[in-house]
Amino acid sequence: MRDVCIVGIGSTPFGRHAGTPIEQLAVRAAAEALRDSGVDRGRIGALYLGNFISGPLNGKEILAGIVGDQLGLPNIPCTKVEGACASGGIAFRHAWMAIASGQCDAAVAVGAETMTHAAGAQVTAALNCAMDNEDDAPSGLTFPGLFGLAWRIHAQRYGTTRAQVSAVVRKNKAYGLRNPLAQMGADLTDADIAASAAICDPLQLFDCCPTSDGAAAVVLAARPLPSDLQSVPVDILASVQTRGAARIAGHPDLCSFDATVSAAQRAYAMAGIAPTDVDVVELHDCFSIAEVIDSEDLGLVPRGQGGAWALEGRTAVDGQVAINPSGGLLAKGHPVGATGVGQIYEIVRQLRGTHANQVRGAKIGMTHNLGGTGVACTVSLLRRAA
Amino acid sequence: MRDVCIVGIGSTPFGRHAGTPIEQLAVRAAAEALRDSGVDRGRIGALYLGNFISGPLNGKEILAGIVGDQLGLPNIPCTKVEGACASGGIAFRHAWMAIASGQCDAAVAVGAETMTHAAGAQVTAALNCAMDNEDDAPSGLTFPGLFGLAWRIHAQRYGTTRAQVSAVVRKNKAYGLRNPLAQMGADLTDADIAASAAICDPLQLFDCCPTSDGAAAVVLAARPLPSDLQSVPVDILASVQTRGAARIAGHPDLCSFDATVSAAQRAYAMAGIAPTDVDVVELHDCFSIAEVIDSEDLGLVPRGQGGAWALEGRTAVDGQVAINPSGGLLAKGHPVGATGVGQIYEIVRQLRGTHANQVRGAKIGMTHNLGGTGVACTVSLLRRAA
Repeated sequence: MRDVCIVGIGSTPFGRHAGTPIEQLAVRAAAEALRDSGVDRGRIGALYLGNFISGPLNGKEILAGIVGDQLGLPNIPCTKVEGACASGGIAFRHAWMAIASGQCDAAVAVGAETMTHAAGAQVTAALNCAMDNEDDAPSGLTFPGLFGLAWRIHAQRYGTTRAQVSAVVRKNKAYGLRNPLAQMGADLTDADIAASAAICDPLQLFDCCPTSDGAAAVVLAARPLPSDLQSVPVDILASVQTRGAARIAGHPDLCSFDATVSAAQRAYAMAGIAPTDVDVVELHDCFSIAEVIDSEDLGLVPRGQGGAWALEGRTAVDGQVAINPSGGLLAKGHPVGATGVGQIYEIVRQLRGTHANQVRGAKIGMTHNLGGTGVACTVSLLRRAA
Repeated sequence: MRDVCIVGIGSTPFGRHAGTPIEQLAVRAAAEALRDSGVDRGRIGALYLGNFISGPLNGKEILAGIVGDQLGLPNIPCTKVEGACASGGIAFRHAWMAIASGQCDAAVAVGAETMTHAAGAQVTAALNCAMDNEDDAPSGLTFPGLFGLAWRIHAQRYGTTRAQVSAVVRKNKAYGLRNPLAQMGADLTDADIAASAAICDPLQLFDCCPTSDGAAAVVLAARPLPSDLQSVPVDILASVQTRGAARIAGHPDLCSFDATVSAAQRAYAMAGIAPTDVDVVELHDCFSIAEVIDSEDLGLVPRGQGGAWALEGRTAVDGQVAINPSGGLLAKGHPVGATGVGQIYEIVRQLRGTHANQVRGAKIGMTHNLGGTGVACTVSLLRRAA
């Protein structure tokens, strides 16, 4: 396997882009990433595009080819990959593998989704494409229901409180206020959160990520890097993709996602580092309680302590491990197929030292992207180039 | 790159499987391929699933993970890939790359689609997800319209006749009659074809592939092969994925698909063989005229002679190069995401010498899978193991 770097990043703001076709958002983000890298389009050997529900919501597929064409890339393989909410992370991993395995010397990973133009019921139905509808539909659970159950169990087992989970919301919403790409930053109090609309007890409105449009892209290249490289490179130490149970009842424990645990363990082993080496993390907080669970599954926080650590400020930018300084899915937004690539974008900014919510001296960053009810997961580890 | 073989194949019949969930078809095909290979599930290191429109037509995504789970595969990366009608070919190529590049020693490629449960207008709308809807929708063209135009130009430029194109239909429908997996074999006369319903002048009903359900799967493994291998292995000489213009107006010539031409040239170069070395081909005859064009684009037939060769029997099982002895998309059917993997299934049977329409002494076979208006293409070359 060859050493691979991230040499360019681009992103649209996450939020409402009503009337802008999804492929235009993807092209905008990818063109920005190419400009940022200075890599000539003729050197790009593969494009991977992460997208989840453009078929149901836009009547558009074959987006990888359309985006490759509109970007003016050469005649190269352009492939859409899908793994529900982990689609972006899977696109990134495949671009990395294409270079690491020697198939090409440079590649583009792009993630894109548009959702805000569709009616709420249509979006809910489309998001439910990420469930095992044959086996789990009879339960009547949608994603808020699943994470509401997870919260109940976490609270019962570990004593996790509303105040602890609200600390996650307040932190991420506050970071979102300062992230120019974020959709829904806010300066909230515990009372604001408690007073927001009930979604699925115990989840209130501010516990849930918004519906979003957006695209993000990164350009990757093999070492030795092109001599005309314009950006500060970031090394990819590991990128791992795992599978968990497809059925909700197939999970031995709703307070933990096996796919996250195994992806993190393999990523640490591949990178040769420990969880304590990680300075900054973008993880999959589709709901506030998900950040609590993910932080434990990733080995960053002791089991059962995710809520306490958030309340004590240990997961803040100046804490022991900075979690979601982008604002996370809760505040930055969750244009599903774009999210995993957007996480990479955020960590690269941290490792370049140019983030709006900068973690001082950040050297090693992590991303965590979770799909469906935990059936697909990617974890990547990145390092500031020496 | 390591040498990779196909060691197991499985397929449902193509046709109507009303009421059978798409993931069950995929699991059935993949389980058959695993049994055929004798490879232990614990050795499988990656699963790629080709699917196009399960989101719009079934409200189901994340199928790769669901199928991997239901198959009882280990915790491995399970990835859906999409490239419209070329989704199956792209899944096969990625499974091959995962092994060739050393990421794993064995992998499964599966393709699946269900379409017949949906109303005709819904299927047409879903299929049109394969077009560049922003740029090409104003033309009002759907796929029959595009291939009708191509036929008009081919006839004008090369003198291709209705009788020549009907020879393609008669051949493929006749082969379909003897293929137990085929949906719509028939013993047709030129008069039957001419008398069938007009779809889009000059295309009649029998010039168009049917709407289909089905799944196909193959198991791939690195050389040296497992000692307990049950099947006769088939070598993968090449598997190439290309991109063509996304817009119809972006094609310099509607009588040829750039993505096919470049994929074939690269595949021949990778395999170190010439078009005349190919004994049997499964190519993308979504419409009768497509077989004429594809046979020329693949370099198997001189430019402009595709129709004449069909009428003269040169593309029959006992001709110079056997084209679509499975019955092709026209007769075997076209469950979109399954088609590319189904083509590999058919060629493996030919190279094992066990096909219902066997090409005598077949040593080298080819598959060709084309997506959208020519924006994505895969070509693979397979050889009977010595």
